[in-house]
Order: sequence, then C-alpha cells, then structure tokens
Amino acid sequence: MIETLPNRYAARPFLVELVHGEFTSISPLTGAPDFGSLTIRYVPLDNLLELRSVGEYLTGFRDRRILQEEVVNVVLDDIVVAAQPYWVEIEGRFNARDGSLTMRAVARSGEDPTQ
Amino acid sequence: MIETLPNRYAARPFLVELVHGEFTSISPLTGAPDFGSLTIRYVPLDNLLELRSVGEYLTGFRDRRILQEEVVNVVLDDIVVAAQPYWVEIEGRFNARDGSLTMRAVARSGEDPTQ
Amino acid sequence: MIETLPNRYAARPFLVELVHGEFTSISPLTGAPDFGSLTIRYVPLDNLLELRSVGEYLTGFRDRRILQEEVVNVVLDDIVVAAQPYWVEIEGRFNARDGSLTMRAVARSGEDPTQ
Amino acid sequence: MIETLPNRYAARPFLVELVHGEFTSISPLTGAPDFGSLTIRYVPLDNLLELRSVGEYLTGFRDRRILQEEVVNVVLDDIVVAAQPYWVEIEGRFNARDGSLTMRAVARSGEDPTQ
Amino acid sequence: MIETLPNRYAARPFLVELVHGEFTSISPLTGAPDFGSLTIRYVPLDNLLELRSVGEYLTGFRDRRILQEEVVNVVLDDIVVAAQPYWVEIEGRFNARDGSLTMRAVARSGEDPTQ
Amino acid sequence: MIETLPNRYAARPFLVELVHGEFTSISPLTGAPDFGSLTIRYVPLDNLLELRSVGEYLTGFRDRRILQEEVVNVVLDDIVVAAQPYWVEIEGRFNARDGSLTMRAVARSGEDPTQ
Amino acid sequence: MIETLPNRYAARPFLVELVHGEFTSISPLTGAPDFGSLTIRYVPLDNLLELRSVGEYLTGFRDRRILQEEVVNVVLDDIVVAAQPYWVEIEGRFNARDGSLTMRAVARSGEDPTQ
Amino acid sequence: MIETLPNRYAARPFLVELVHGEFTSISPLTGAPDFGSLTIRYVPLDNLLELRSVGEYLTGFRDRRILQEEVVNVVLDDIVVAAQPYWVEIEGRFNARDGSLTMRAVARSGEDPTQ
Amino acid sequence: MIETLPNRYAARPFLVELVHGEFTSISPLTGAPDFGSLTIRYVPLDNLLELRSVGEYLTGFRDRRILQEEVVNVVLDDIVVAAQPYWVEIEGRFNARDGSLTMRAVARSGEDPTQ
Amino acid sequence: MIETLPNRYAARPFLVELVHGEFTSISPLTGAPDFGSLTIRYVPLDNLLELRSVGEYLTGFRDRRILQEEVVNVVLDDIVVAAQPYWVEIEGRFNARDGSLTMRAVARSGEDPTQ
Repeated sequence: MIETLPNRYAARPFLVELVHGEFTSISPLTGAPDFGSLTIRYVPLDNLLELRSVGEYLTGFRDRRILQEEVVNVVLDDIVVAAQPYWVEIEGRFNARDGSLTMRAVARSGEDPTQ
Repeated sequence: MIETLPNRYAARPFLVELVHGEFTSISPLTGAPDFGSLTIRYVPLDNLLELRSVGEYLTGFRDRRILQEEVVNVVLDDIVVAAQPYWVEIEGRFNARDGSLTMRAVARSGEDPTQ
Repeated sequence: MIETLPNRYAARPFLVELVHGEFTSISPLTGAPDFGSLTIRYVPLDNLLELRSVGEYLTGFRDRRILQEEVVNVVLDDIVVAAQPYWVEIEGRFNARDGSLTMRAVARSGEDPTQ
Repeated sequence: MIETLPNRYAARPFLVELVHGEFTSISPLTGAPDFGSLTIRYVPLDNLLELRSVGEYLTGFRDRRILQEEVVNVVLDDIVVAAQPYWVEIEGRFNARDGSLTMRAVARSGEDPTQ
Repeated sequence: MIETLPNRYAARPFLVELVHGEFTSISPLTGAPDFGSLTIRYVPLDNLLELRSVGEYLTGFRDRRILQEEVVNVVLDDIVVAAQPYWVEIEGRFNARDGSLTMRAVARSGEDPTQ
Repeated sequence: MIETLPNRYAARPFLVELVHGEFTSISPLTGAPDFGSLTIRYVPLDNLLELRSVGEYLTGFRDRRILQEEVVNVVLDDIVVAAQPYWVEIEGRFNARDGSLTMRAVARSGEDPTQ
Repeated sequence: MIETLPNRYAARPFLVELVHGEFTSISPLTGAPDFGSLTIRYVPLDNLLELRSVGEYLTGFRDRRILQEEVVNVVLDDIVVAAQPYWVEIEGRFNARDGSLTMRAVARSGEDPTQ
Repeated sequence: MIETLPNRYAARPFLVELVHGEFTSISPLTGAPDFGSLTIRYVPLDNLLELRSVGEYLTGFRDRRILQEEVVNVVLDDIVVAAQPYWVEIEGRFNARDGSLTMRAVARSGEDPTQ
Repeated sequence: MIETLPNRYAARPFLVELVHGEFTSISPLTGAPDFGSLTIRYVPLDNLLELRSVGEYLTGFRDRRILQEEVVNVVLDDIVVAAQPYWVEIEGRFNARDGSLTMRAVARSGEDPTQ
Repeated sequence: MIETLPNRYAARPFLVELVHGEFTSISPLTGAPDFGSLTIRYVPLDNLLELRSVGEYLTGFRDRRILQEEVVNVVLDDIVVAAQPYWVEIEGRFNARDGSLTMRAVARSGEDPTQ
C-alpha cells in the first residue's frame, strides 16, 4: 500500500520527483520479464508520498502481467487515490524487447500550479 | 503489417515513444545501404501500436530503395492508417553518407492533446 | 547565519546560481544519513548571498533530522529572510535511500524579472 | 553547385537537419585555417537539398578567406537561392582560435510552419 | 581594448556566441584566484566583436580583485559600450571556492530580435 | 538448460563475451530483489554457448534466493559443465542495496590460451 | 574482393586499426538481422588494406546467414589471405538479440611485432 | 562492527569489489567535513564481508576526525582483522578541499591469488 | 620547419605528449580531404619540440596528397630528424571516409627509457 | 613552502594522488598565460604532503615564466626535497596554445614499491 506523510508546506505548491531505476513486470503477450525505470513527478497538496512504501508498491509489479503502456496509467491512478496531489505525471522507460523497440510512456493528471 | 492492441486508457490522452535503433534501407541514388534510428511518438486514441509488428514493419525497409527524407513521411502515413492516433511524430536520424552529412528528419500529423 | 554583500548592480535584475554538491542531513524516519546536492537560484535585489556563509549554513544540516521535501522549503524560507531577493528557487537532489527511489524537490518564491 | 531533388511530400511541412562535421575555411585576419561544424536546418517546399552536392559545396570553403560570422550568412543566402524552402537556419560552431574563444553563430530566414 | 569589425550582415539579426574557457580573476574577499568560463552571446547591429581583442580583454581580469557576480555585469557594460549590439547576454561559471559552492551568474541587456 | 552449438573454429582459440544487462535475483538475507548485470567471457573449445538458452538460464535466477557473491560462482560452474571451454570468467555487477554499497564479483576457471 | 595497396613502410612494423560501425548480417538461427561493429587491427607487411574495398567486403555480409562468432573468424581468414600481414586481430561487437545478450568476439592470427 | 558470512566457494579465489559512494569524515586540521567514496577490493578466504554491516561501519566515520590518507589505512587494518582475506585493497577518493586538490589514496595487504 | 628548444632536464628521461586535433590532408585516391587528429609522444634527449613550429608543420599537410597510413610514418621520420629523441610514437586517428571505415595508425621509433 | 605531516603508516607503502585542476603559469615564449592541471602521485616514506601548502605552492606559479615541459620537472624536484618519498610522479596537462597543440608531460623519480 502507498502510504503518505503530512505535507507541512501545503500552502506553497512545490515539485517532487521520484525515480525508481529497477522496475520490472511481466509481458502479458510473451510471459517474459520487462525491465525499465519509473518516474513519479507530483505537486503535493496535503500529503507527501512516503518513499519506502512507494518503493515496495513499485516492486510489487514484479509478478504482474501488464502492458508497458498500462503500467503508467495504473500507477497514475493509484497515486491519485493515495495522495490526491495538485498534479501528477508518471513516466515509464522500458528496455528494448519484442521488435527491438525501446518504449517510453508518459501520462498526467491535474494542473501543475508551479508552472 | 502494423498490428494494434486495444487502448484501455483512451479516455486519458498520454504519450508513447518507441525507438528503433537499427533502421536500414537502400539509397535510391547510390544503391548503398543507409543506417540510422527511427523514433515514433504518438498519443493513442483507440489503438496501441503492437511492438513486435512495428519492429517487423521497420525491418521491412531493409531492401527498399527510398530517400531518407521520404522514410519519415512513409512511416508517418502508415502509422496514421494503422492506428488512427490523436497525434503522431516520426523522427529519423541517419549516419553520414554522401558528402559526409548526417541527416535528421521530423514529420508530424494531428494535434497533440497532451500539450 | 547567512550573510550578504551589497549588490552594486541592483538596478539590473540578473540571475545567480549556487550549487552545493555535498549536502547531508539525517532522515527523521530511519536515523540514517541522506546525501545529495542543493542548488540556490536567485535574482538579487539589494543583497548578494555571501558564499562562505551559505556554505557553512548548508553544512549545518549535517546533524539535523529533516525530511528531504522539507529541506528545500526550509532553505527557501531562510534565503528569503536573509537576502530578500526578487525571486529564488531551491532544488534538492538526493541519492536513493528507502525503497531505492531518488528524490528531487523544487520550491520557488517571488516572480523572476529576468524571464 | 547546390543541387536539389523534388520533394514528394511538399503538402506536409517537415523538418530536415543536415550536419557537416568537417568544415574548414581560412581566417581573413590571420591566414590560418579555421575548423568547425556547419548545421543546416530547413523545412522544404518544392525542393529537397541533394546531400552529396551540399557536402561538396561546404568542402568548397576550404580555400576561402572568410570571417566565421560571415560563413553562416553566406551559406544561408546560397541555400535560399538554391532550394527556396519555407524556412532555413544555419548554425556554425568553430574551434577556439585567436584569443582562445570558441565561436557559434546562428542565422535564420523565413517562418517555420512546423512550430 | 575591445575592438570591432564592421558587420556586413547588419540587415539580418543573427546570434553570435563566444566562449572563453580560461577566465581567472582574484577574489576581493580572500585574495585567492577564482577560475571559470565566460560566455558572451550577442546579436550584432553594426559591429562584430573582434575575437583576439575580446580574448585579451578577458585575460586582463587575471590581476583584478572583483566579485564573481560583478564580473558578468562589468563585461556586459563594456561590451555594450564597445559594440552597441541589439542584445547581449553574459554568463559566468566559476569553480567551487569558499563554502564549496559553484557559482553561475547571467546578466542581459537589450531585446533579442531573433526570438 | 544451457544449450550449445558446435564450434567450427575450435582449432583457433578466440574470445567471446556475452553481457546480460537485466539480471535479477532475490536476496536470501532480506527477501528483496537484487538487480545488476552479468558478463560471461569464455574461449570456446568444441562448443559455442547458444545465446537464447543462456538468456533464459540467466532469467531463471529471477525467483532464486542467492547471495550476489554466490551467483558468479554458480554461473561459472554451470557454464563449465555445459560448454567445457578452455577458459571462462564470470563478472557480476549489482546495484547498491543494504548499506548503500555496490558489489562487483569476478570468478574464473581454466587458462586463457589467447593471452 | 578485398584489395590492397603497396606498403611503402614495410621495413618498420606499425599498427593500423579500421572500424566499420554499420555491420549487419542475418542470423542463421532466426532469420532476423544482426547489427554491430567490426574492427580490424593489423600490422602490415607488404600490403595495406584498401579502405573502400574493405568497406564493400564488409557490406557484403548484409544478406549472409552466419553466426556472430563465425563472422570474426571468416573475416580473419579473408584478411590473412588478401594482405598477409604480420599480425591481425578482428573484433566484432553485436547488439543484443535472442536472450537479451550483447555479444563481443575477438580472434587473432600471427605475432604482433610492435609489442 | 564488521560482520561476515561463510564463503561457500573458498576453494576458488575470486574477486569482490564493494563501493560506498557516500563516505564522509571530519578533517582534523580544519574541523570541516570531508566527502568522497571508499572502495574495498578483496579475495575472500573463509569469510565474505556482510554488506549492511560494512555500510554501517563506513557510516561510522561521519563524526571521526581523521586524515584522508589515514582513512584507507584504518579501513584496511579493520577489514584484515574482521575477514582475514587472501588479499585486500582499499581506495579512497576525496573531493577537493584545502588548496583545491582532490585526493586519492590506495593501500593493499596480502598477495592477490587471482592475478 | 620543426624547431626545437634546448632540454634543460635531459639527464632525466620524461614523457611529452602533443595532440593536434585539426589535422587535414588530401586523399591521393579520391582527391577529397581527410580529417583527423595527430598525436606525438616522445621522450626528449637534448631537444624539446617547439610547439608553434610543430603546429605549423602539421598544418602544412593541408594541401598534400598522402595516404593516412603514410602520414604517421612521414611525421615520425621528420620528428626523428628534427629532435633526435630517445623514443617517439606517432598516432593518427582519421574520420570515416571511403567504405565508412575510421582509421587509426600508430608507428614508433627508438626505445622508451621511462618504461 | 611545501609543508609535510608525519606519516603514521610509513611501514606500509601506499599510493597517494593529488590533482590540482587550476594550474596557470606564464609562457616565456609569448608572455601569455598557460592553463592546465597538475597531478602529483607519490608513495610516502616518513612524510605526507600537507594539502593546503601544496595548493599554495602550485598557485605560486601564476606569475612565473616557465615552459610547460619544465613545470613538471621543477615540481618533481621540489616535492623530492620537501617530502623525500619512496617514489613520485608529476603529470601536467595543458590546454592548447601556440600551434593548437595540447601538451601532456610526465616525469618520475624513485622506484614505486607498491608495484
């Protein structure tokens, strides 16, 4: 479960970026593992993401069969539910697999008040 | 043939970027091979590009005689027909050949709803 | 204490960026040290930040128990009080710790007159 | 002479970038050789630049006495005459010479319809 | 003294960037040498900066006692007087010194007609 | 199972190096995943390692609980049994985990006839 | 065919290294293309390798079905026959393919008199 | 305290390298913090170094006043006592401090049986 | 002409390495220019190479028709005549030209007393 | 003056490397400043070099007229007199100046007991 900490600086929108360099899941098409990195960028409102729980949440994809394009959307939805930030963006970068293509996917939710 | 998978997150426009680092075709001017990389950036509507079929489609240029500037336009047209995305951008980068000039070409179609 | 020098060019807004590559503090959650870099970007009004005192101020976090997200907000507030610049931005980058996530946080205050 | 090929995709403005990494000319101030790279970015209308002829055109500066700042303007004028593109930008980067200063110069002509 | 050459392409605003990688001056606070690089970006009107004289001008700071933040403002003023460009920007980057902080400062004058 | 192909050039000792950039196993001390890369260098005698089977063999560590220092020794023993090369060297590089230490381990078997 | 030029400096052994960055052949196991680079290092006796013919020779592997480990041995044999050098070493580096393993292979013939 | 694990592969000498990128101690000359990285290379006999305890041991230098040249010798002695390896080498790399000099120091003990 | 300065430290053999990054000559096979870098490593006896004259000597190849393999041998002979060093090594690195092959050539004369 | 500290680990020869990245002196041929870096590698006997004094010693070359080849020999002699180490090596790397040649020079004294 993604846990949160209270944001003592909620009055001032600021950006936080977390990068997990060891993301791995299972391709639902081939059953082989996918590897890559997952970046979470968000502007917290009342809650800060607690890093250890986010790390464990992302490690939990290790045995899930899920398309790379869907990973970023699932993480986006889960972060919104857990932390209700002003704005959040999820970026996944995946190593080349079938067809020798690397994949990058980026999904966003909300408006970034710091821009 | 470029195949597609249904996009379960069509309600939320998001960006996907695929990079093929081993593109090769034949120069119609000299008959010698061209080498480079081909990047596809798109915002899917109802269809996700299926990676293995895109890889095979791009590998299929190996024996085609085609100008580097035309490669990006041909791929752009074929992606639009196959996947009908919100927006798509094709970028080709080619190694130096005649005249010791490297070549980069970028073509786009549609409006990017994520910007 | 953060000290200042008089800005002889206050009539012309200009950007100053200071990078401290050896920031360390203590995690209030685990008691283990955090490591990273701290960047201060500001447009001075009447005062320039005096570098040696800023370096000593940042070194003073070595024994403080403070969340990484809070570090950037604390430094932001202290710079505003000490130098009253037109605009200031604090960026912290921290090495991976719990959950194998690197952290970057950016907070700003004021309007940048040079943009 | 700069030669051209017909642009079969003139209906869709797209960007082409050519980089020549071995540009050399002669300094009119010292008589010593200058070295650098020359980049041509353009959006073709009816004509594509033919790469071998552009390479030979740029190699032709080898024995010309010309200021680095003037090189980019001369190439810009010659490309406009030869290919009449929507838009063209020339960027020269030159190694350090007198006074130990590297030089970069950028000149443009027309409006870029792809932006 | 900064010398100039006539700009034969004054009718077309274009960008010139000069980088001097061996800037050194003396800190007025400690008497120890500062080291860094100095970049001049400008859009010439009637005058081009003559490189050898600019190099000698910048080398002339070797024995001056001057704050790093003031260097960029002094060079900015001197370039404006010498060449009266449309627009000019000076960027200094200095190695870490007191307090282990690197410093970057950027000052501008005029409006850039190429943007 | 590691499979082999017949080496048609057994009469001339030559070096082969295979790098698997997506190695992952489970720490027996913490139960958390380890990530890294695994390099196999060998001089074949009668058998070449078949790449797809080696990739599947290394992917098979995904659910094994094994110390990083033991991974290189286990792989070394398995390669010797499968391919009986003149010489083989296994190098593992693992990301920082407990105690923020990266780990590299190298084990060898046999004499390298190409040195 | 690999052609040669007479070596006017045969009395003094010296090293020559040629790198071809665009090697491609066909995997005999999967029928898919392999990509990589091929390096030839040799100490000439009476013959220098003529570069254009070597480039065409290496381009000729484009439609051959051949194992990556065999490529370096075939090129080695062909260079020895064509140029009879003191010493020659062939190194191939191939992109990841089956099993996500990159491959490097190195074969040598003769004694290097420059060591 | 540095803890160890039993080495199940003691019969085959192999190399292990641990890198701690966040070493910090206090200069006995100035009282200011030193920063750098510490690398331990060893060939284990009966004992493997346990990573978490080594990380905590190295973190324990945070409040010690010790010369950089002495750090590598102290760590060397402590590793020898704790693990009694065949061979061990300690390398410290420290950021520039007084006099703007970076420092690297390397000390060894024992004979490396893998060379 | 290559000029020399007296070596005041002839009693102690030491290494000097000079790198010229802007070497260009003309291919005798195609008439097109070659580009690359030229490195001179030597151990002086009674004479130091005077840098400006060496630079002018190397610039003098700009209009010579000469094979890349011969360049290093010609420079080697000329340095030996001019400076009579203990030992000298010439390394040329040339950009890809005919056949898309980069070229590196290394020739030596004498014994290096510093090894 | 170069100062020293007592070496408490004189019984075990170990390597120390100091790098000064901001070396500058004056060319006796042109009167213009030279810039580069100076590396000192030594194996201490009874004395460690004190870093602040070495930094001040090297800064003292700022106004000296001296050939780059002589700098390394002068520093070598001064270190030997000040610290009497087992072995010492001085390496200077200097930016391109007359003739566009970069310069590297390396001189040594004594036998390295750690090899």
